[in-house]
Amino acid sequence: MEFVECVPNISEGQRPSVIEAIAAAARAVPGARLLDVHSDRDHNRSVLTIAGPPDAVASAAFGVAEAAVRLIDMRLHRGVHPRMGALDVLPFVPLGGASMELCVDLAHRAGERIGCDLGIPVYFYGEAAIRPERRLLVEVRRGEYEKLLTRIGTDPSRAPDVGPSVVGPGGATAVGARRPLVAFNVHLRTDNVAIARAIARAIRASNGGLPGVQALGFTTSHPGLVQVSMNLFDLRATSVAAAVARVAEEAGARGVELAHSELVGLMPAEEALRAAAAALDLPSLARSQVLELALSDQLALPDQLPDQWK
Amino acid sequence: MEFVECVPNISEGQRPSVIEAIAAAARAVPGARLLDVHSDRDHNRSVLTIAGPPDAVASAAFGVAEAAVRLIDMRLHRGVHPRMGALDVLPFVPLGGASMELCVDLAHRAGERIGCDLGIPVYFYGEAAIRPERRLLVEVRRGEYEKLLTRIGTDPSRAPDVGPSVVGPGGATAVGARRPLVAFNVHLRTDNVAIARAIARAIRASNGGLPGVQALGFTTSHPGLVQVSMNLFDLRATSVAAAVARVAEEAGARGVELAHSELVGLMPAEEALRAAAAALDLPSLARSQVLELALSDQLALPDQLPDQWK
Repeated sequence: MEFVECVPNISEGQRPSVIEAIAAAARAVPGARLLDVHSDRDHNRSVLTIAGPPDAVASAAFGVAEAAVRLIDMRLHRGVHPRMGALDVLPFVPLGGASMELCVDLAHRAGERIGCDLGIPVYFYGEAAIRPERRLLVEVRRGEYEKLLTRIGTDPSRAPDVGPSVVGPGGATAVGARRPLVAFNVHLRTDNVAIARAIARAIRASNGGLPGVQALGFTTSHPGLVQVSMNLFDLRATSVAAAVARVAEEAGARGVELAHSELVGLMPAEEALRAAAAALDLPSLARSQVLELALSDQLALPDQLPDQWK
Repeated sequence: MEFVECVPNISEGQRPSVIEAIAAAARAVPGARLLDVHSDRDHNRSVLTIAGPPDAVASAAFGVAEAAVRLIDMRLHRGVHPRMGALDVLPFVPLGGASMELCVDLAHRAGERIGCDLGIPVYFYGEAAIRPERRLLVEVRRGEYEKLLTRIGTDPSRAPDVGPSVVGPGGATAVGARRPLVAFNVHLRTDNVAIARAIARAIRASNGGLPGVQALGFTTSHPGLVQVSMNLFDLRATSVAAAVARVAEEAGARGVELAHSELVGLMPAEEALRAAAAALDLPSLARSQVLELALSDQLALPDQLPDQWK
């Protein structure tokens, strides 16, 4: 059976009743599994992780979109993370044997419904981008909700791919398809957010830093801690372990110590195994060397093949 | 569904045709999955990992026992690892929801068949031990095959729990039940096996070292490398990451560098996640934070509960 993942990012990280009502819309769809809800008060943002068969995940994604647009008013939203809509970002991700083409198709169909049925301007990004300049989310979201309010009707480069060229209280949504990514925050023991920002600039791919890494520096609500917040888009090029090591190196050069890290949402098993191998000096650690993963991979194969076929 | 693991250790690590014939006996049982075969030429020993429903695993274990006794002649066996039989050790391990009682019962039933049907002296160890002094494998195997030849008939403390008090070419077998363990080798960049042995003595639990750790120092067939070979029996007390760190510390104190590590067989997912968390400065990394594990755990739950029950 093919499985896909969908990771709606909603612009609410503070009001539990709103977050729960939106999460309930995902759970209400038979077959879809809501694996995680990660809320951040400072970002005022929550990341939902939904997985399951493609049609169930697509239905759950639309349910989340409808609830987010109904319950979140972007005119009132404040948070340190860039955002432009109640449902800010909606990426579809292939798991296991599923193809990227399938996820591009899911993104386009979800975008059509969000644009037409909910009246939300939609921009396709990542592998689902229709305009090449919209492949990067950072380009799509430039200026955020507040600037988009006026530019969407006047600047042709900001015309949506689907939906009205008018921004209401629900804002706009980026809908895309991508490979698995890891969102990961490293905390620094300092009150000086300029250090977090300088490290983010030093390590991000767009400045010639680590390939596949987006990074921003943020304050946190904990005194004495600032945050380097990373999205790791190309885990083969830059593993989470490599990114953490680089942040540690940059922090050390600035005389700052690392505090604990934070995983936002989930990570693919392969990435966890890569980190484990690094910790244990193993050349590698394969799924087939981890009991539960090996057994579930084997159980997915047909039983009772004649012996010589195995 | 309940699953158990069984990890036969056979005294053959050099002849591929013999190892394959014994592995085929495990694969021939419907429902049992042979997840791994790890052979070591220097130990002249292979570790098979079988998992599946209890009855299928028990049948596969007996198939392995029969083939090992038929194909391995202990009179000709040479290897650096302690051993006393063709099928040297046969532990049953509960997975997921399975109980230790179930595995003790599987061990006793498998031991009866090996003792009575194959004519092999069997000693029950671990949680399946009948005599308290046989809980530790190191006690059961003391003197190895060669000393057991004469002592089994003369020394009452070496009388088997099941089977004849006579040792033939198949040797004797320790059959047991235990929690998951990790077998892990750390290599040192030196030709001096005395250093590996000294580190093994320093870290093993029996000398007041790390709790739940058995360790031996071995030569390897690679010039410039010796090995600290560990069994980690109580992963909550001493994780693999902690054991590797301790070996690194002891090696450093002796001016020796670590080379790569080696996982023998498989490790439980929980232990891989613990190592990954250490590498990434995460306070912890739960199954629910790893995509494939979270999805498989969720898929094991009933779908379509009314929303308020989820």
